Amino acid sequence: MVGLLQQIRQTIRRERLLPPGARVLVALSGGADSVALTHVLLELSEHGGFSVVALAHFNHQLRPTANRDEEFCRSLASGLGLDFEVERADVAGYARSQRLSVEDAARRLRYAFLERTAGRRGADHVAVGHTLDDQAETVLLKLIRGAGPTGLGGISPRKGLIVRPLLEVTKQDLTAYLSDRGIGWMEDETNGDLANPRNRLRQVGLPELERTYPGATRAIARAGDSVRTDAEWLDRTADTLFRAVTHETATGLELDAVRLTAEPRAIVRRVLLMALRVVGGHREIGLDHIRAAEDVLDRSCGGTDVPGARLELQREKLVLSKAGALLK
Amino acid sequence: MVGLLQQIRQTIRRERLLPPGARVLVALSGGADSVALTHVLLELSEHGGFSVVALAHFNHQLRPTANRDEEFCRSLASGLGLDFEVERADVAGYARSQRLSVEDAARRLRYAFLERTAGRRGADHVAVGHTLDDQAETVLLKLIRGAGPTGLGGISPRKGLIVRPLLEVTKQDLTAYLSDRGIGWMEDETNGDLANPRNRLRQVGLPELERTYPGATRAIARAGDSVRTDAEWLDRTADTLFRAVTHETATGLELDAVRLTAEPRAIVRRVLLMALRVVGGHREIGLDHIRAAEDVLDRSCGGTDVPGARLELQREKLVLSKAGALLK
Repeated sequence: MVGLLQQIRQTIRRERLLPPGARVLVALSGGADSVALTHVLLELSEHGGFSVVALAHFNHQLRPTANRDEEFCRSLASGLGLDFEVERADVAGYARSQRLSVEDAARRLRYAFLERTAGRRGADHVAVGHTLDDQAETVLLKLIRGAGPTGLGGISPRKGLIVRPLLEVTKQDLTAYLSDRGIGWMEDETNGDLANPRNRLRQVGLPELERTYPGATRAIARAGDSVRTDAEWLDRTADTLFRAVTHETATGLELDAVRLTAEPRAIVRRVLLMALRVVGGHREIGLDHIRAAEDVLDRSCGGTDVPGARLELQREKLVLSKAGALLK
Repeated sequence: MVGLLQQIRQTIRRERLLPPGARVLVALSGGADSVALTHVLLELSEHGGFSVVALAHFNHQLRPTANRDEEFCRSLASGLGLDFEVERADVAGYARSQRLSVEDAARRLRYAFLERTAGRRGADHVAVGHTLDDQAETVLLKLIRGAGPTGLGGISPRKGLIVRPLLEVTKQDLTAYLSDRGIGWMEDETNGDLANPRNRLRQVGLPELERTYPGATRAIARAGDSVRTDAEWLDRTADTLFRAVTHETATGLELDAVRLTAEPRAIVRRVLLMALRVVGGHREIGLDHIRAAEDVLDRSCGGTDVPGARLELQREKLVLSKAGALLK
C-alpha cells in the first residue's frame, strides 16, 4: 500500500499527463478503479496544481444495476462537492444498428460522451481508470488473438484528451487504498461472466499465471509499455517513409521499390501495411499479406493478390491496383 | 500436413537460411523435431542445392535414456548413409563448477560442440530443430518472467552458423510427417516433468490457451517474430548512437545529454541500457533502473544509484561513475 500515491504521481510526471493548470474531467463508473481515481486525483490535485472540474458517468443501460450505479456516482459527487455529468444511451440498440460488438459500441459512445462533456465543461483532460491489470490483460489478449505486425503494444497512458494515471498500479492496491479509508464502491456483477474472453483472462488466466510466476502481471504490463514505446517511433518513421516513396495513381498506389528495399525490414513491413490498408479499404490486413508483399518486393514472387487489390513489381515500382480498377 | 515441406522451404528462402552450396551439419537429439529436421533437409537438399555433411549428437548424460538416444541417432545416421558425430559431456558437473543452471550449462556445451564439429567438418551451417511451439513458449516465458526493455523478441531463425528451418511449423505437423512415412523417434521422458516452467507451459499453459483461443500458439510465435524484427533494427540504431554520444572516463562513462535528449524514447532507453550494462559489469539491469536513468536525464531527479554505479546529470553530461571509483 505504501507508495500507491507516489507511484501514481510518478506516472503523471513521467508521462506528462496532468501539467500544472490542467482542468480534469474524471470518468466515473462507480467501480473500485474509478472511485479510487477520483479520490487519488483530489488528493494529488493541490500539490500537482491541477483541478478536478467534474465527475462524468455514462449509463450504458446494459446491466440490471445500471441505475443503482448511476445513483451511487451521483451521491459520491455530491458528497465530494463536485459537479456531476451523466448521460444515458441505448448501447445495445446502437451496437445492432452499427453492427458493432456491444463492447465496441459501449466504448465508442462512452468516449464520445466524455469528449463532448469535456468540451462543454472547459476540461482539457479526461482521466479514466485503466490499471496495470487492464494493461496486462490487453497485452495478453492482443498476443493470443494475433495482434498483427504492429499492434502488440499496450494501452497508451495518454491519447488526445484521455489520460490514464492508474496504468502502473494494480486493482488490488486500489481496493486496499479504498478499504483503508472506508470508501465504498459498486461491484460490476458482469465481471464474473466467464464467457467473455477478457473476464476469463482476468478471473482465471492471469491469477493462474501470477500464482505460477509471481510478478507475471506486472512483467506483462511493462513489456506492453516497452513494445508500445518502440512501435510509436517505428510507426512515425514508417509514416515519413511512406509519404516519401508512395504516389497515388488512377488505379491505386505506386511505391519506389529501390528506396523501399534499402530500408530495414521493421520499417518496410510497416510501409507495406500502410499501402495495403490504403488500397484495401477497410479490409483486414494480416501478417500473411505483408509477407506476401515482402516476397514480391524481394523478387521471390512475381505478384500476389491481397485484400481488395493486386500487387506486382513493375520495373522499379511496387504497383498496387485496386480490385476491379482495371475493368472500369 | 499438406504444405509442411512448402512452409519449411519458404522459411529457408525468406530468411536466407541455406543458400545454394551450403554445407549443413544437422543437430540430432533423437526427438521428433530433429529426426524430422534430418529427413526434411535431405528431401529439400537436392532442389535447394545444399548438402547435409553429417549428423551431430550431443550426449548430455543427464537422463537414464541418454545412451539409448545416442544409439538411436547412430543407427539413424547409418541407415541414411550419413556420417555421425557424437560427444559426451558431464553437463551436471559443468553446471555445478560454473554455477549455471543445468539447462544453461547444457545449452552452452551443446552449442560449443556443434560449432566445433562444424569447423572440423567444413560445415558452414548448423541446423537445429526449434519449432513454432518452441518459439511461442519462448515468447510467453520471456513475457511473464519480465524480459526487460528489449528482450521480448523470439528465437532468431539464424544466428552465426546456427539456422532454424522449422521455426514456422508445429511439432504436431512434424510428428504427422514422421508417422506418415513410418519413421520412428525417441520420446524425451523428462518433457513430462511439470516442475520445469517451460514444460508446464508446454504441457498445460499453451494447450489450455489454444483450446480457449484457437490459433493462439501461432499468433504468439508470430508476434515474437515481429517484435524481434523491430528490436533488431532499434538495437542497431541505438548502438550507433551509443558510440556517437559516449566516451569513457577514468571513473566510468560520460554521455552527451543534449544529443541524447533529442532522440526518441525507444532509442534513448536502449542507449541507457547499454551504458548501465557497461558500468554495471555483469549486474542485471531492469526497467526500473532505466526509468530512473530517464528521470535523471529529463531533470526530474538529480541523481540515482544504479547497479554498480552512480548516475548524475552534470551540466550537459550524463555522468556514470562506477561504484567505489572515486574512493580509489
